[in-house]
Amino acid sequence: MKKTLSYGMVGGSLTAFIGGVHRVGVDFDGRAFLKAGCFSQNEAKNKECAEFYQVDDERTYKNFHEMAEKEGSREDGIDFVTITAPNDVHYEAAKAFLENGIHVLCEKPLCFEIGQAEELKKIAEEKNLLFCVNYSYSGNAMVKEARELITSGYIGDVINVNAEYLQEYLVDDIGAGDQVMVKLSSWRKDPAVAGISNCVGDIGTHIENTVSYMTGLKLKRVAAKLDYWGQPLDLNANILVEFENGAHGVFCSSQVCVGHMNGLVVRIFGTKGAIEWVQENPNILYVTLKGQPTQIYNRGMGYVTERTAEVSRIPSGHPEGLYVAFANIYRVWISSILKLKNGEELSGYDYDFPSIDDGIEGVKFIQACVKSSKNDAVWTEV
Amino acid sequence: MKKTLSYGMVGGSLTAFIGGVHRVGVDFDGRAFLKAGCFSQNEAKNKECAEFYQVDDERTYKNFHEMAEKEGSREDGIDFVTITAPNDVHYEAAKAFLENGIHVLCEKPLCFEIGQAEELKKIAEEKNLLFCVNYSYSGNAMVKEARELITSGYIGDVINVNAEYLQEYLVDDIGAGDQVMVKLSSWRKDPAVAGISNCVGDIGTHIENTVSYMTGLKLKRVAAKLDYWGQPLDLNANILVEFENGAHGVFCSSQVCVGHMNGLVVRIFGTKGAIEWVQENPNILYVTLKGQPTQIYNRGMGYVTERTAEVSRIPSGHPEGLYVAFANIYRVWISSILKLKNGEELSGYDYDFPSIDDGIEGVKFIQACVKSSKNDAVWTEV
Amino acid sequence: MKKTLSYGMVGGSLTAFIGGVHRVGVDFDGRAFLKAGCFSQNEAKNKECAEFYQVDDERTYKNFHEMAEKEGSREDGIDFVTITAPNDVHYEAAKAFLENGIHVLCEKPLCFEIGQAEELKKIAEEKNLLFCVNYSYSGNAMVKEARELITSGYIGDVINVNAEYLQEYLVDDIGAGDQVMVKLSSWRKDPAVAGISNCVGDIGTHIENTVSYMTGLKLKRVAAKLDYWGQPLDLNANILVEFENGAHGVFCSSQVCVGHMNGLVVRIFGTKGAIEWVQENPNILYVTLKGQPTQIYNRGMGYVTERTAEVSRIPSGHPEGLYVAFANIYRVWISSILKLKNGEELSGYDYDFPSIDDGIEGVKFIQACVKSSKNDAVWTEV
Amino acid sequence: MKKTLSYGMVGGSLTAFIGGVHRVGVDFDGRAFLKAGCFSQNEAKNKECAEFYQVDDERTYKNFHEMAEKEGSREDGIDFVTITAPNDVHYEAAKAFLENGIHVLCEKPLCFEIGQAEELKKIAEEKNLLFCVNYSYSGNAMVKEARELITSGYIGDVINVNAEYLQEYLVDDIGAGDQVMVKLSSWRKDPAVAGISNCVGDIGTHIENTVSYMTGLKLKRVAAKLDYWGQPLDLNANILVEFENGAHGVFCSSQVCVGHMNGLVVRIFGTKGAIEWVQENPNILYVTLKGQPTQIYNRGMGYVTERTAEVSRIPSGHPEGLYVAFANIYRVWISSILKLKNGEELSGYDYDFPSIDDGIEGVKFIQACVKSSKNDAVWTEV
Repeated sequence: MKKTLSYGMVGGSLTAFIGGVHRVGVDFDGRAFLKAGCFSQNEAKNKECAEFYQVDDERTYKNFHEMAEKEGSREDGIDFVTITAPNDVHYEAAKAFLENGIHVLCEKPLCFEIGQAEELKKIAEEKNLLFCVNYSYSGNAMVKEARELITSGYIGDVINVNAEYLQEYLVDDIGAGDQVMVKLSSWRKDPAVAGISNCVGDIGTHIENTVSYMTGLKLKRVAAKLDYWGQPLDLNANILVEFENGAHGVFCSSQVCVGHMNGLVVRIFGTKGAIEWVQENPNILYVTLKGQPTQIYNRGMGYVTERTAEVSRIPSGHPEGLYVAFANIYRVWISSILKLKNGEELSGYDYDFPSIDDGIEGVKFIQACVKSSKNDAVWTEV
Repeated sequence: MKKTLSYGMVGGSLTAFIGGVHRVGVDFDGRAFLKAGCFSQNEAKNKECAEFYQVDDERTYKNFHEMAEKEGSREDGIDFVTITAPNDVHYEAAKAFLENGIHVLCEKPLCFEIGQAEELKKIAEEKNLLFCVNYSYSGNAMVKEARELITSGYIGDVINVNAEYLQEYLVDDIGAGDQVMVKLSSWRKDPAVAGISNCVGDIGTHIENTVSYMTGLKLKRVAAKLDYWGQPLDLNANILVEFENGAHGVFCSSQVCVGHMNGLVVRIFGTKGAIEWVQENPNILYVTLKGQPTQIYNRGMGYVTERTAEVSRIPSGHPEGLYVAFANIYRVWISSILKLKNGEELSGYDYDFPSIDDGIEGVKFIQACVKSSKNDAVWTEV
Repeated sequence: MKKTLSYGMVGGSLTAFIGGVHRVGVDFDGRAFLKAGCFSQNEAKNKECAEFYQVDDERTYKNFHEMAEKEGSREDGIDFVTITAPNDVHYEAAKAFLENGIHVLCEKPLCFEIGQAEELKKIAEEKNLLFCVNYSYSGNAMVKEARELITSGYIGDVINVNAEYLQEYLVDDIGAGDQVMVKLSSWRKDPAVAGISNCVGDIGTHIENTVSYMTGLKLKRVAAKLDYWGQPLDLNANILVEFENGAHGVFCSSQVCVGHMNGLVVRIFGTKGAIEWVQENPNILYVTLKGQPTQIYNRGMGYVTERTAEVSRIPSGHPEGLYVAFANIYRVWISSILKLKNGEELSGYDYDFPSIDDGIEGVKFIQACVKSSKNDAVWTEV
Repeated sequence: MKKTLSYGMVGGSLTAFIGGVHRVGVDFDGRAFLKAGCFSQNEAKNKECAEFYQVDDERTYKNFHEMAEKEGSREDGIDFVTITAPNDVHYEAAKAFLENGIHVLCEKPLCFEIGQAEELKKIAEEKNLLFCVNYSYSGNAMVKEARELITSGYIGDVINVNAEYLQEYLVDDIGAGDQVMVKLSSWRKDPAVAGISNCVGDIGTHIENTVSYMTGLKLKRVAAKLDYWGQPLDLNANILVEFENGAHGVFCSSQVCVGHMNGLVVRIFGTKGAIEWVQENPNILYVTLKGQPTQIYNRGMGYVTERTAEVSRIPSGHPEGLYVAFANIYRVWISSILKLKNGEELSGYDYDFPSIDDGIEGVKFIQACVKSSKNDAVWTEV
């Protein structure tokens, strides 16, 4: 029986913040080992990263096409690949690995076109490969608690949603054109690399996914007003939303809101109760039943649902942070690949990682927001 | 020199919550005394209230028309009237007192039609009478601090606004028609008495006023989605807003958001900083400058602006609440009437009470929201 | 039947912060009217205050002895007196009014010597007069909620207490002798006027009273370390406490803790649950049952106890602050005097104001702390 | 040049919570690999853990004596050992590895007797070996920020300290003897295994260390009241403290405070400012300067000190939790051992891990508290 996996990375050189988070996330449970990579277009950086992680020279690749082919044909080839390169690489890289029989975990946003997204889905299905789009916040134990409570009817029917993701770090870009030292990586401002949206594409899509994960609801349409202030891509977005069940709400996504670091806050209101989650203090969930006091749920306590207890790693009051959210996604991801490799069937929580369908919803959401805003915030189907 | 005033009330019987707050608000500074009233249409209630407050029988009136005329012609007649009766009475009552030379402080919303509002303004101007529309939250010291900081440019140009007023107390009205015991006073559900909106008219208008007071900005247009769930008037509203300076934002107003009691929260984002005020803990203001830590301003400390220090009554850390907000409005209101009576000119902070122009803006806002929502949230000029 | 009272004040000139709070507190319910006073030793200030409040010249007194005698012998003499003069006046003034048959509400600390305190109690009892020592925080609705919950056994037996009252405003007095402009009124630093303690006497005593009121428990002994830093009276105190039921805890009282304005925080831990109250946000109570999520109780909601609902004045989410705490004490106080005057018996909540016994406990507590600290924090009986 | 290390573990089988945290902490930076272990006295558990982590059979040991000897004599022997076995093992195990030339990282409390602690220190010094006692909270970036600010004089001289570590999980042990299913591991209640204190030894010692780390101050004496409620070891402790610089304060340590999960809160008050850190939300630091608003420092922002920026791993607003605190200790620990192995000198932050001197202070603190409490809380030198 196969007990461990090997994996590779596209992107994620030593200086890339998110690459390191992925590697640590994998390492938490000690069931997968980094054996191949194409960490950077820059040869020196690529090599440096490979050496640091003791990846063999012959498995350190200059481009992902070569990597996908060679790893796909090795007997000891990687079982899955993590793609953390800039957005414009996602589609082609994912496709290459899928075609070579390798499971794919890809950063969000999945790709630029819905047709591409659906093509990836089709290949994965045909080849019986798993595909994860890394909406990492869904890995938090208390996001899962929210999902368990809401989808089991604990707060009744969802009637209103108020969610936001606010950051301040691009405020100097307002009206600055290219004249100031801005904090945004240059690739993020280039539509050819980043895609059609910056703010909605980078963080607004997390709002959409987290709400969808928590509630099980799909968006029907959006009325979005994006602010550009002279930049090629959006820095701020205020969005009216309508869900398939008729509920309304707002999503606010911004990189120019001073005082907010990484402020993803989701509030779901139902006919019987409400739930609030604040990403910056993620081990807490605010749960209120109609007419009752708000309750502060703590991860790790006896009253949380079975699922939350199961994914929780350390006792209540010991903060689990971003790395653990990644680790939780990887735990399911790796365990499910192992099951497949060992001929087991997947079911239930084996699929509790953000799927390619989530990725497709994300692409649709970004496109609808940009289109709506171009039409002065007219309602636009997602 | 006149040192004290006498005043009367229309509405505000002993069982009416807000009438009592007005009386206490007036009493804080001991400069005006209740001498006349038409407290209720119900004769027993009217009399009971008059007796409790030792208002003379002959100055306890059955209707406001009689009251306005008689008080207007007495030598010792009331100097101002406070109108706290249901919304449909505001216009006619205000008009009657103005026409009899009596200053008017009226609860919000001012009236139902913009034409009525402008008529009241015209009469007040012609007769050199003051008119206050009681947007009470503007009486809070830290709301004034926000106004001082923002209008002096402390946070730069306003670029985004996120404000909400959430309550839970009508959640049982969803889909209930008249079948459940609901907590809303019956008059508030009757469009003939309450006007064209419940949720936006009762609390949404406070968002509009508080933001306008803090920033000095006027709304240009709104795209509003109101939810009715089978009720004659709205229970929930999600509103995209655009200000005259081009800034966007959202206003969320709801009486069905479980977990929220009286949650007016205003966040103003500028190019240099941001300010947040939370009504339920009103002695605090969160002030952040770009790239700096958020600062928790406390009313009563040495670092607040001169104006805030001036209106503050008790030391820092001793909570001033809703009654003090009312008292602060009445302090300016009474002092300014005294100045007029004593032949002094008014200037600057003598006008620091919510004016009839604020009331007119409120009426326009309510009408624009309802109209926008009827047209599926199309942008509508305010 | 007597429906209203008249009262007088000793101390409380226009510039004295706490005098104004008393007057407003009385006015909230419109059942007592200021008719006499000896507001200041300073003749001009005394007169100015009397004029402002329209107190007759003949009832504006130069000293409290004259006031007590004359008011005691007038047919329309005051029913009660509020004593807010500096601490050294309390005993003599209270005695004078009691001896002239006038009910007494006195600021804390009651007096300097336990013998004096007991003498006052004896006179009050003999003359069937009510005596209130103004521990104002007990007037807060959510402090009463805590009391109702704890004394009814909701959190089980009290096993540990952690309470503090922290302020920052005297931090510049550390090591400064009289060399800096300090913020403490000069009388507060003079042991002859303030008594043997500043920090414990002014604010530490509120900790003792609030804990005692919430729990019904009496202190048995204290081990206190007071810090003086060269000042004649204490600025800081850390106190181990032991209650009569054997529970331990700490009381921390300080006027040199930067970042704290008026930070009275009381946490009571029991075998089944715990309760926390934070004075600066007084409409909230944190209630936790063993193994359950912490619940955020809001004043004004349906789930609070009957008593709390009864004393609550405005809906949930509308902040009641310091003035309301005073008003709540005066409401019971005035209502109970009216009952006595009308020949009714008092019972139950008619006594729900801080009594002379509370005042006596306060004096004992202050003395025990100072004595313990002089003996290097040895346990000292209260 | 040596670039990576190998290490071993004593204790830390798969079911032991803290063992897993250590392994993940080491893995964060990929510079040390688990190569040997004596994970459990239970042979099956020992083997299971070794297999899971792919530790060779020949390096999976039945007892730590054998492990220390064999690893000490192998050419590829482990460079350091992590000791996470129950408290009674610490001294002997640490001694064995030191004597065999292996660097030691040991869980707190270091050992039972001060003599033992000093012996370990002597051996380590003689053999030029590093010794870390795992006070893990010192690994948090914002604890380091507090240290940087305080030791550089930012808040002036420390004048008062208020710190607590509150948990609820043993509340059912009160008065229960052995009659209830308690949550405390049985070894923790056995003085022979746990040492002379449970609550002070397990968590109180973290208060002492965190305060000492942040301030650089040493305790002079304590007056402690421990509560046992019929248990062999303490469940609750209220402690007056005096520091060498004359400052006073309180430390409150409890495992019976309902509503608190893992509530380490440290507040340091100085003549110029104050700092507060709350372990359950560790990425935040509250910093207040005298007369100024409290500032909410966020890890990862540009205004933090150079040291904090250096140890920070992910951007502001992305929560770093307990695992990162461990990882930060291991990063310095591993890097310093590598420096030594490569013949480099250590200096400055190379020593920024909790040392054996910290461990010795901890043992002294525990002993002083227990002794003081036995003498009814008399002041006892640390």
